[in-house]
Amino acid sequence: MNGAHSLVKTLLNQGVDTCFANPGTSEMHFVAALDQIDGMRCVLGLQENVVTGMADGYARIAGKPACTLLHCGPGLANGLANLHNARRARAAIVNIVGDQATYHRPHDAPLTMDTSSLAHTVSGFVRASTCAADVGRDAAAATQAARALPGQVATLILPSDTCWSEGGIVADALPALTAAPLDPHSIETAARMLRNGRETLILLGGAGLLQPAQELAWRVAQATGATLMADFVCGQVARGRGRVPLARVPYVAEAARAALERFEQIILVAAKPPVSFFAYPGQPSIEYRAEAELQTLARGDQDVVAALQALVDELGAPPAAMPDPGARPEVAHGASTPEGLARTVAALMPENAILCEEAISYSRGLYDETYAAPAHDMLHLAGGAIGDGMPVATGAAVAGSGRRVINLQADGSAMYTIQSLWTQARERLPVTTVILNNRQYAILLGEYANVGATPGETAMQMLDLGNPDLGWINLAKGMGVEAARAETLDELADLMRASFERDGPFLIELMI
Amino acid sequence: MNGAHSLVKTLLNQGVDTCFANPGTSEMHFVAALDQIDGMRCVLGLQENVVTGMADGYARIAGKPACTLLHCGPGLANGLANLHNARRARAAIVNIVGDQATYHRPHDAPLTMDTSSLAHTVSGFVRASTCAADVGRDAAAATQAARALPGQVATLILPSDTCWSEGGIVADALPALTAAPLDPHSIETAARMLRNGRETLILLGGAGLLQPAQELAWRVAQATGATLMADFVCGQVARGRGRVPLARVPYVAEAARAALERFEQIILVAAKPPVSFFAYPGQPSIEYRAEAELQTLARGDQDVVAALQALVDELGAPPAAMPDPGARPEVAHGASTPEGLARTVAALMPENAILCEEAISYSRGLYDETYAAPAHDMLHLAGGAIGDGMPVATGAAVAGSGRRVINLQADGSAMYTIQSLWTQARERLPVTTVILNNRQYAILLGEYANVGATPGETAMQMLDLGNPDLGWINLAKGMGVEAARAETLDELADLMRASFERDGPFLIELMI
Repeated sequence: MNGAHSLVKTLLNQGVDTCFANPGTSEMHFVAALDQIDGMRCVLGLQENVVTGMADGYARIAGKPACTLLHCGPGLANGLANLHNARRARAAIVNIVGDQATYHRPHDAPLTMDTSSLAHTVSGFVRASTCAADVGRDAAAATQAARALPGQVATLILPSDTCWSEGGIVADALPALTAAPLDPHSIETAARMLRNGRETLILLGGAGLLQPAQELAWRVAQATGATLMADFVCGQVARGRGRVPLARVPYVAEAARAALERFEQIILVAAKPPVSFFAYPGQPSIEYRAEAELQTLARGDQDVVAALQALVDELGAPPAAMPDPGARPEVAHGASTPEGLARTVAALMPENAILCEEAISYSRGLYDETYAAPAHDMLHLAGGAIGDGMPVATGAAVAGSGRRVINLQADGSAMYTIQSLWTQARERLPVTTVILNNRQYAILLGEYANVGATPGETAMQMLDLGNPDLGWINLAKGMGVEAARAETLDELADLMRASFERDGPFLIELMI
Repeated sequence: MNGAHSLVKTLLNQGVDTCFANPGTSEMHFVAALDQIDGMRCVLGLQENVVTGMADGYARIAGKPACTLLHCGPGLANGLANLHNARRARAAIVNIVGDQATYHRPHDAPLTMDTSSLAHTVSGFVRASTCAADVGRDAAAATQAARALPGQVATLILPSDTCWSEGGIVADALPALTAAPLDPHSIETAARMLRNGRETLILLGGAGLLQPAQELAWRVAQATGATLMADFVCGQVARGRGRVPLARVPYVAEAARAALERFEQIILVAAKPPVSFFAYPGQPSIEYRAEAELQTLARGDQDVVAALQALVDELGAPPAAMPDPGARPEVAHGASTPEGLARTVAALMPENAILCEEAISYSRGLYDETYAAPAHDMLHLAGGAIGDGMPVATGAAVAGSGRRVINLQADGSAMYTIQSLWTQARERLPVTTVILNNRQYAILLGEYANVGATPGETAMQMLDLGNPDLGWINLAKGMGVEAARAETLDELADLMRASFERDGPFLIELMI
């Protein structure tokens, strides 16, 4: 058995049965093994940032890692930005990078790059196999590492001779790594803080934003009067009817400071102390009050649900019914606004939908207006590297087994990974993409205003997406996805309803 | 004066007057400075690999660096693959990466990445400014480094506070770094080898492939009977009437070994000993005879023309007229073949055109059939990271001041950086793109055959670009570029002629 065969069989043993790929010459033996061994679903992306973004979206929804298949250092380089986002979203990915044969690397052939250094920038685990006998063992270790709480990118670099050489050994499934132990002192301290009468925020991130943790956090909040909030930096939030109506820390630093200013104490649940995305002249980096007392209840590598349960027990917090979010919103009418778009989506989305938002400057109101929607999973851009919305939506749809995915997608960001549409068409995925067409990098025009200047011709040349206008319907059709334009929210509603009746993808260009 | 103003003025002082950009929040003060100071042409790319590829194409044609403007680690990551190609093409680029403010970095805000490690993988020079007063000095040093022979990527990382803070100091132009001194022993040895009667190859790379070096190399070859050949790994070759009819070392390892097998001696002129792109089981890494004697006449960081002149003098090689390539080819007819396409392009291209080829599996015959075309510059993918053809063509057109650019572009590779078309439309660049539509990664199907297996459904899922077919005309129109399909070379010829009459870009989908 060659190394490639041992790789595929080992991955399947670990429960990794989906491979997002853009292979090259050095991966041909891996491709052949995938062809010859049943059980792995292979999904092609036309550029590697699509591939890695799909693996991220898949992991968030499947709750287990897929593997990637990338080609040498440059293939990894192309996929790094969405691996960065996956790292920030704490997604589990077995990131497989084929590379030059061990003995060929010293010759510095053209595609040779410092693959390992690239991998280290986004991975919690990096290993390069050195011979066929190690590939199975290393693949099992990479999968175990990827699944370690809270989930991480584990990169396995496979020189081509480790794949084609005989001597491969299939590895059995490795046990899940245990969570780091909870610190009883942290739980006692948090409980004491929650009883001392001071204004307290419980900031939820990571697994703290999924349903089991939300229910426990809600009991704590009801028992103590603490406020619950979602970290801005998060990949996935359970939302809608039956979930806690969490607000999210705002993106804009000034708004975030205003939202956090009143808290004397912050209890962190798989969240870091909130800081602004960027520094601004004369403004602080941190978004909370400098004298606030911070206490970590649980880190991402600990069992967040167990920590919250322990806090519930410590406080003796009684069961608490989830709040009633009120009536489901109705479709909005007329010209699009961020709030009207959110209401319309909330009015129409099917039960258990996946809402993948990379709405950037148009995300205002999204949380408020979708509280009363049916239960759904909201996926966010956690790492700030634009261009994850479309591939994450695509990978989420692969994992979703028919769940409807709605991708609210800013136009500028969409152009980063527009190739995702082709994979949606090929795989006939139930993705409804809403392109928010404002023909500019609106968020940057806002930031430019902060500089205190009015953009002239040269600045607009770098901030404006018109001249020529992007033709979204043509772009979608060029990749096999049907598309139509909505000038109003009424038209959007009609097109969304129709798209939900389809098996495959559909793109709506919404003029905003 | 803030750091950003000192940056722009310093760059202009060094003769850097073109900026390929995709800025973000941390670069807004730089954008404002570009807006407020006259003299810099700013060209937006919709994804960073387009931006860096344009800077590469610009440098090759302009003979001087442009600067880039990228956004934090993720923006650099997106542009790395074409920086890798630029490194292999020895292109001079002042690669400017805005980043988190110095004091904000420790907070690990979402977009924070190990920017420096990323930069080191592709750059010959990396510097991060630490305060506004250093920005001008560092920008001058980066420009000087970028221009050092043979040209390299020089990355300047600018934390946002170094741009917005007062205290910027404009730096004067720095002198060009002198070439590394020639080694008289190398020239004597090469001359002795050329006189010893053994079969000798002079392998030209880098500056050895431009016209001044070609003429001297031709004199040497005529005087000694040595064979001249172009390295496969090269960014730019002066070709057509009045230039030396160089063959290029083949891409396919077996063909390369066959072409190089007869040489007992190889004299390297800004070229490395040829090795195969990839290793294959049981095949050698090197493409030349193991016992061949290798001698470097000049490295890329030495003055290649001076070295060849010294060799001419040492040999007493008399002036030699450039060979007559014979009659200009005529347009080919009927279904497309690689040779027919090459003949048609040779028949129609205007004088002094730029031929940018990322034809991959369809490049066969291109060199033979274009010897007798008018003088032109041929640009190649030097680093093997697919997706440089369209952005390099775009950047070359920006530098070309009206020169016609013809981009022979494989379909699979085109999808990597398809966003380039939008910049071509916005800037009204004279680029004729010929998409070579075979609906597959044909080169990989060839490599798969080498594995010794017939691709089944799973393998084809990763190697085939049909299902759905890409609609190139829609894709082009979606980005503001007019387009049409050619089923035959006759139709191609008609569309090419018409495109040459236009001011702006045009895309031809050639069915192959």
